[in-house]
Amino acid sequence: MEFDLIARIRARAASRPDVELGIGDDAAIVRVPDGLRLVLATDTLNAGVHFPAGTVPADIGWKALAVNLSDLAAMAAEPAWCTLSLSLPQADAAWLDGFLDGFLDLAARHGVALVGGDTTRGPLSVCVTAHGLVAPGRALRRGGAMAGDEVWVTGTLGDAAAALALAGTGAAAAAGPQAARELRRRLDRPEPRVGAGRALAGLASACIDVSDGLLADLGHVCAAGGVGAEVALDALPASAALIALFPQRARRALQARGGDDYELCFTAPVSRRAAIADALAGAGVAATRIGAIVAGDRVRALDAAGAEWVADRAGYQHFEG
Amino acid sequence: MEFDLIARIRARAASRPDVELGIGDDAAIVRVPDGLRLVLATDTLNAGVHFPAGTVPADIGWKALAVNLSDLAAMAAEPAWCTLSLSLPQADAAWLDGFLDGFLDLAARHGVALVGGDTTRGPLSVCVTAHGLVAPGRALRRGGAMAGDEVWVTGTLGDAAAALALAGTGAAAAAGPQAARELRRRLDRPEPRVGAGRALAGLASACIDVSDGLLADLGHVCAAGGVGAEVALDALPASAALIALFPQRARRALQARGGDDYELCFTAPVSRRAAIADALAGAGVAATRIGAIVAGDRVRALDAAGAEWVADRAGYQHFEG
Repeated sequence: MEFDLIARIRARAASRPDVELGIGDDAAIVRVPDGLRLVLATDTLNAGVHFPAGTVPADIGWKALAVNLSDLAAMAAEPAWCTLSLSLPQADAAWLDGFLDGFLDLAARHGVALVGGDTTRGPLSVCVTAHGLVAPGRALRRGGAMAGDEVWVTGTLGDAAAALALAGTGAAAAAGPQAARELRRRLDRPEPRVGAGRALAGLASACIDVSDGLLADLGHVCAAGGVGAEVALDALPASAALIALFPQRARRALQARGGDDYELCFTAPVSRRAAIADALAGAGVAATRIGAIVAGDRVRALDAAGAEWVADRAGYQHFEG
Repeated sequence: MEFDLIARIRARAASRPDVELGIGDDAAIVRVPDGLRLVLATDTLNAGVHFPAGTVPADIGWKALAVNLSDLAAMAAEPAWCTLSLSLPQADAAWLDGFLDGFLDLAARHGVALVGGDTTRGPLSVCVTAHGLVAPGRALRRGGAMAGDEVWVTGTLGDAAAALALAGTGAAAAAGPQAARELRRRLDRPEPRVGAGRALAGLASACIDVSDGLLADLGHVCAAGGVGAEVALDALPASAALIALFPQRARRALQARGGDDYELCFTAPVSRRAAIADALAGAGVAATRIGAIVAGDRVRALDAAGAEWVADRAGYQHFEG
């Protein structure tokens, strides 16, 4: 089945001037500009694990690239090229066309060229490797947060986990179709914060994308930096749709622990507060200060009274399992 | 399950001086030397499709990297870095350790650093992206074969397909365990012809690795170059094990159409015959002249009498399906 599908992909994939050889040979050849560093990220989405059954092909395509561009964004890299390895139960041209609608739409928005890959028979699975560029020393990393730094997050939290919580319950329709659709769009069509990540180079002390849930991912930042963090629950940004559909207690769990948001969580010295606000405004992305880095090794979420919040059950697990 | 497994992989992965940031952040950062081109290949192996049930984890690990290094070899690229995306039905440390034995053994032989990737829950599937380097204009491509060029192939053909044909039939034990083991090793532990590929830069006019079967892959070379080819069946190289276990008629089908050999099939002007022999001897790889490029668009396999050979059934399909 491989060749018909590859021909279909090749016919639609855009190129870039720095692609010397794209889809159709044993491998692709690209030019990395002298003096820039190459940034590599790989993530796989599996049916029934990373997206619910019934997710439309275009949304799977978008998300498969988005989660990889989100990793590049968290490094402040400029996306350049990607490869796609697609496992399908059977050759299905209509499915592939839909998938490419979403995948190539997002690729075009970020100037990313699909330069190679393969298609194979197997349970539905999408593996993407994304390649980006960054100037030496400009990449953001997980390590680097210092006690006294502020903790920030872009956009809003909890929407994707809320959409998962609603999926298949009938609660979505009861609660209002417009708000439910907005949440579902956050799950299916995450916006990788590429512009925000690049704007934060030289300003943020550490950065990560929120894929496992805010507290878990902030925990990775703290572990990498040898620090702790305190987050104000009431400061966590929520969308209007989330506020409309979930009472405060459920909302907090979704915001603090829900995965799949693909926002950026980053830290920075207080002295850079205005510069960060300016840089993110320039990138067209909202961001909120939600807490501070402290000495220690724990991430604590505090309520308005300063008491530590503990999820009353295991919390919403990251869909990835 | 993701973090324990990643920690296990990280603890064992070797690095290289040009890796600025390896496993453990949102993405990896590497330095591409000024003036070299980056070569990218991605291939996925799925359980039950690309390797038989019961294949030991170390062999799966070896092969997952080997098929990607084989793609780099066919471009005359020097392998440098790779990423690994591993889908597993459950977190299984013993399985992962075995897998890494094979994967990292082959990586070490070619100086390849595993710099990133992910582990996810799902049906067993291994997606590898391999990155190599090549000087501008030195990469081998599928296109470029000219009428009058000779057609060559490295090593021997048909062993991997023979092992598949024997698998589970009981014929292997009956035929002689040593010869059957040798064939099976060709299926499970293909040797990517990295040194041979690099030695052929500047000498071969076109090159491809034999993954779908000699006639199919030579067909890709002909299609890319707008030429045809004639191959002498009696010239196709066979291993002693294949000769011992298969009569001529079955052997021919395996050699001409069997996939998964991962030898290099390449073309070159007659005038370079001696230079190619020298270059491949330097790389320690045997090669055989098996035919010629001709005008037209067909690949014809000819018997000793000059009659065109037609497989008496569909032929051995590439295992990949």
